[in-house]
Amino acid sequence: MHHTTEIVVRGYHIDLYGHVNHARFVEMMEEARWRFFDDRSSREALSKTDSPVVVVNVTIDYRAPAKVYDTLIIDTSTKSIGRTSAVIHQRITIKESDTVVVDADVTFVAIDRVTGKPVPIQGIMRELLEAAK
Amino acid sequence: MHHTTEIVVRGYHIDLYGHVNHARFVEMMEEARWRFFDDRSSREALSKTDSPVVVVNVTIDYRAPAKVYDTLIIDTSTKSIGRTSAVIHQRITIKESDTVVVDADVTFVAIDRVTGKPVPIQGIMRELLEAAK
Amino acid sequence: MHHTTEIVVRGYHIDLYGHVNHARFVEMMEEARWRFFDDRSSREALSKTDSPVVVVNVTIDYRAPAKVYDTLIIDTSTKSIGRTSAVIHQRITIKESDTVVVDADVTFVAIDRVTGKPVPIQGIMRELLEAAK
Amino acid sequence: MHHTTEIVVRGYHIDLYGHVNHARFVEMMEEARWRFFDDRSSREALSKTDSPVVVVNVTIDYRAPAKVYDTLIIDTSTKSIGRTSAVIHQRITIKESDTVVVDADVTFVAIDRVTGKPVPIQGIMRELLEAAK
Repeated sequence: MHHTTEIVVRGYHIDLYGHVNHARFVEMMEEARWRFFDDRSSREALSKTDSPVVVVNVTIDYRAPAKVYDTLIIDTSTKSIGRTSAVIHQRITIKESDTVVVDADVTFVAIDRVTGKPVPIQGIMRELLEAAK
Repeated sequence: MHHTTEIVVRGYHIDLYGHVNHARFVEMMEEARWRFFDDRSSREALSKTDSPVVVVNVTIDYRAPAKVYDTLIIDTSTKSIGRTSAVIHQRITIKESDTVVVDADVTFVAIDRVTGKPVPIQGIMRELLEAAK
Repeated sequence: MHHTTEIVVRGYHIDLYGHVNHARFVEMMEEARWRFFDDRSSREALSKTDSPVVVVNVTIDYRAPAKVYDTLIIDTSTKSIGRTSAVIHQRITIKESDTVVVDADVTFVAIDRVTGKPVPIQGIMRELLEAAK
Repeated sequence: MHHTTEIVVRGYHIDLYGHVNHARFVEMMEEARWRFFDDRSSREALSKTDSPVVVVNVTIDYRAPAKVYDTLIIDTSTKSIGRTSAVIHQRITIKESDTVVVDADVTFVAIDRVTGKPVPIQGIMRELLEAAK
């Protein structure tokens, strides 16, 4: 099941062009991923995983601008899971509208804490990702 | 000719993981593009262009982490120019090393100020992009 | 009545020193003020006020560090209201603890939209500030 | 001798009101302090000091707005030094004008790395602060 969360656009998210700045979307998507893990697992469980994940690629399509007071809905879901990597899709829409603001793919790799080499995605991390398809 | 600029990593660029946060790279790449236009044109000339450009896609490969006190070199160049759109490539490396931190493609479209429809990239904007191949 | 709101500390709020960065607190206090006005008035009502307010002074005491996963409670209240200016007090504490992280005073002045000169704080703005004592 | 550095205002520094956002000034002042220490000492020397300094108070007067393309001059100097604490003054002006944008006092305390208790400001830190009066 997809995870969704809301963020209201404030004056400090806006840049010279009167719209939400690109870097702010990257931050909002990170916030949504933190909430996804917070809502569906415990910090204790996650902190026990042997293999942290690192972001290796972000691909963002900016489809429409967002402006102050827009309530953004950030939908986070699993697009694909391989042995050592996974792709999370994040779509930002404006609440009570059909407007898609951003479509993004975020690719992670699980790595060994010591060697830094890719390792299989396992345990609670794989469960969370499977459940968010 | 490529444009290059430097940014030193400070404590406020760093996040929980001890490395430069993703959103900060997006901001640093925006800073580099502002400097590119600043260094190679005048604000007066640019402000006269009929057609502003908007970013429609950013694709970022994170290749290596950057840490505090690293001097980052941001190389900005034109990857391709079409009739109404162009792709700028930005590569971030760590000074005095072979370490590539980020490789990114930023795709722009020129739009009509009134209708918002794509229009040909012309004038000084096309000249600047052609010169940065 | 004071207004309170919560923000959970995320990895991107943290800086080199492992604690929430100062600029982030300034941003969090701005977010809390936006929520205060959102929760207690309508945008339509506020947008009709003749005199926008501008921040002229911020005084922040940093009393204790905040770290990732802390749930911050931001308490916003009116400290004093004069004819043309007011002081809002914002206190940030860590939920389920006695730890005060930040105490701040934010001083605003109401100004005339055209002349920029200080004018009396009136209407809904004064009502909201009086009610938050 | 005061330390001065320049930062050009970009589109991403600007917020809804068309001016540099407050939190950005706090970040710019931190950047200026990093450059101050970078320009006048070595990282090796500073990293050897026994007692790190922590900011305990920031008091900021916002005197005038700054807008895109303004070149800001950030002047950093020592206002006072006590036994365990010091106050740095930072003034931001717009280049080639008499406009003061921000006046700020930043109060630091030297603390013991282990106990967290205030300790005397000594060595290179005291020398740097004395020299910036």
